[in-house]
Amino acid sequence: MDPTHDPRLLDRPQSASDQFTRDELDSASRNHAFYLELLALETTPIGAHYVVLHFDIPLVDASTWRLEIGGLVARPLTLTLEDVRQRPRVEAPVTLECAGNGRALMTPRPVTMPWFVEGVSTARWTGVSLRDLLIEAGVDTVGGRQVVFGARDRGITKGIDHHYQRALPLDQALLPDVVLAYEMEHRPLPPQHGFPLRLVVPGWYGMASVKWLDRVTVIDREFEGYQQKYVYRDTQCAEDLGRPVTRMNVRSLFRPPGLPDGDSRKRYAPPGRYEIVGKAWSGVAPVTGVEFSADGGRTWRETQLFPPAAPHAWQTWTATWEATPGTHVLCSRATDAGGNTQPLTAVWNLQGMGNNSVYRLEVTVADRLSR
Amino acid sequence: MDPTHDPRLLDRPQSASDQFTRDELDSASRNHAFYLELLALETTPIGAHYVVLHFDIPLVDASTWRLEIGGLVARPLTLTLEDVRQRPRVEAPVTLECAGNGRALMTPRPVTMPWFVEGVSTARWTGVSLRDLLIEAGVDTVGGRQVVFGARDRGITKGIDHHYQRALPLDQALLPDVVLAYEMEHRPLPPQHGFPLRLVVPGWYGMASVKWLDRVTVIDREFEGYQQKYVYRDTQCAEDLGRPVTRMNVRSLFRPPGLPDGDSRKRYAPPGRYEIVGKAWSGVAPVTGVEFSADGGRTWRETQLFPPAAPHAWQTWTATWEATPGTHVLCSRATDAGGNTQPLTAVWNLQGMGNNSVYRLEVTVADRLSR
Repeated sequence: MDPTHDPRLLDRPQSASDQFTRDELDSASRNHAFYLELLALETTPIGAHYVVLHFDIPLVDASTWRLEIGGLVARPLTLTLEDVRQRPRVEAPVTLECAGNGRALMTPRPVTMPWFVEGVSTARWTGVSLRDLLIEAGVDTVGGRQVVFGARDRGITKGIDHHYQRALPLDQALLPDVVLAYEMEHRPLPPQHGFPLRLVVPGWYGMASVKWLDRVTVIDREFEGYQQKYVYRDTQCAEDLGRPVTRMNVRSLFRPPGLPDGDSRKRYAPPGRYEIVGKAWSGVAPVTGVEFSADGGRTWRETQLFPPAAPHAWQTWTATWEATPGTHVLCSRATDAGGNTQPLTAVWNLQGMGNNSVYRLEVTVADRLSR
Repeated sequence: MDPTHDPRLLDRPQSASDQFTRDELDSASRNHAFYLELLALETTPIGAHYVVLHFDIPLVDASTWRLEIGGLVARPLTLTLEDVRQRPRVEAPVTLECAGNGRALMTPRPVTMPWFVEGVSTARWTGVSLRDLLIEAGVDTVGGRQVVFGARDRGITKGIDHHYQRALPLDQALLPDVVLAYEMEHRPLPPQHGFPLRLVVPGWYGMASVKWLDRVTVIDREFEGYQQKYVYRDTQCAEDLGRPVTRMNVRSLFRPPGLPDGDSRKRYAPPGRYEIVGKAWSGVAPVTGVEFSADGGRTWRETQLFPPAAPHAWQTWTATWEATPGTHVLCSRATDAGGNTQPLTAVWNLQGMGNNSVYRLEVTVADRLSR
């Protein structure tokens, strides 16, 4: 065990209760969920994109804000927002997912932001290539090992007063598709999505895509900030740091058919034929297939999988469901080119990270409903 | 008692637990909260505006969508979105608040969407005057009594399969500031805010501002739809329909000073002088004053109150707080020209409507924190 490792900083309380604490509810009210009925859309409208906020949203004055690029670089840069915007524009739709998405489906449940499955979205991001800026600054690719991204948001966790900071390995930071984005869906970033500038790291869980970015620092060692060393870890116990969470596991979701009950969100549908529309993604390798089940996973059949709109955007899939009276459990299961398939049940870990278990939706089909 | 009144449709279960049910959490994850730290802004960015969804978000095809204006009118209208947009534009910032905002602060707590205080926002809405359209259609102002607004969203509540529908008294619908809005913050409405057209009724709680509007019908009686007759009622028991909720009660909130704890959202601040910035509003009469207390409401002092940007937008107020080490409870209390003042504690009712009790925020001031 690392002698400088403090297990208290890694730990998360666990709950077996089917009720949720005030802190969990507060987290859910700030960390806006995506709406599954919008899975029919290729990209997610602003305001429907999921949000994760560790602390308060900083309101940044763009006229005084600067981006500092320093550390192991030959020519440190200090850029205004206009400087950033004048560089060549890159744009791409990117699927982002919170590493904790699916946490509340674990048993016991790690007590922090209680995501079920709605912590995923796809937006078009516009900005500049991080790689180009690092090369312009003369990054030391021999001595440099990691790139640290510092942000404006600040708060206290486990007694530690800190700004949010995360690092990427230098080779990952130099991949050509990593973007410093100043627009989301062709508008300046809204405050809650990181105005004026944020990182977007395609393929990785969302914690890597640092918002309210103001400092990029190349260092010659592993970054040991709190959010890197103690949070976003896949571990079985607080004594073991486990593995850092990095790329998104393969996953699929679908638009719930039928009508909701306004109180319970239970689903009801008239009998008939439904086209089930879903999305699938993986940060590890391209998605190669999605299976659909209308009997709770006893039998599966292949769905029609469409190519993605861009390399890091989710892919649409469709299946036909012949709905007959009764209660049915619909499920989908995606597989990627790395041979990874969604597990049928959640695999527990201490912080509730990376749960990509099969999405299950119960629908009651009733004759009395009209279409 | 009305012989056609069914108390089961009006009832809401109550909870004295400090834990929340899965249904409450699901509601909170869909009904996005406003962020109090954005109270410094005059208007709320898209995506930070609170959202209430009774059912799924309908995805409306604007090319086939039509607005039907009918009932007691001489010249029924069927309008395309382009027809609506070609009429004279009106625009105004309007503060909207959910009638259930503050519900979770009641004891016992009505079990439905568990708002604390974040169900309020202010956006600039652009559209056409409802009054002008009703006059164009030749509204029967003698025989007409109410105007029913029908929407595309559909679901099941208490076993009733229905589209969301609400009515306004005809004289209220003919007030010149009621808008049929197709833009929010100068962009087409996002799906979750009612694309392609919604009602905005200034001064009223949000349930009146029907989203995904497609039908306006003038009727000669009181509308008895489920969302009108049984929901949004201020009542003490399910046997009595009580009063319908209409205009927003006087209320004030402020931006929490200092830093949050990332898990508990408790506030911490270094000692020193703070400018507290807040907003105040009332749907009943203009706000005439806001008081601030730094000792939990034992002593109050007047704050500086600024004029609103528009008649139906919240007003900024500011106060100075000299923060000394220790734990303090900050509060604000607004009064309107109707002589209404925020109560110190919540006034319970069965459905948890219209709670405008004083906002209380505990802040721990600690020397060890830097500014």
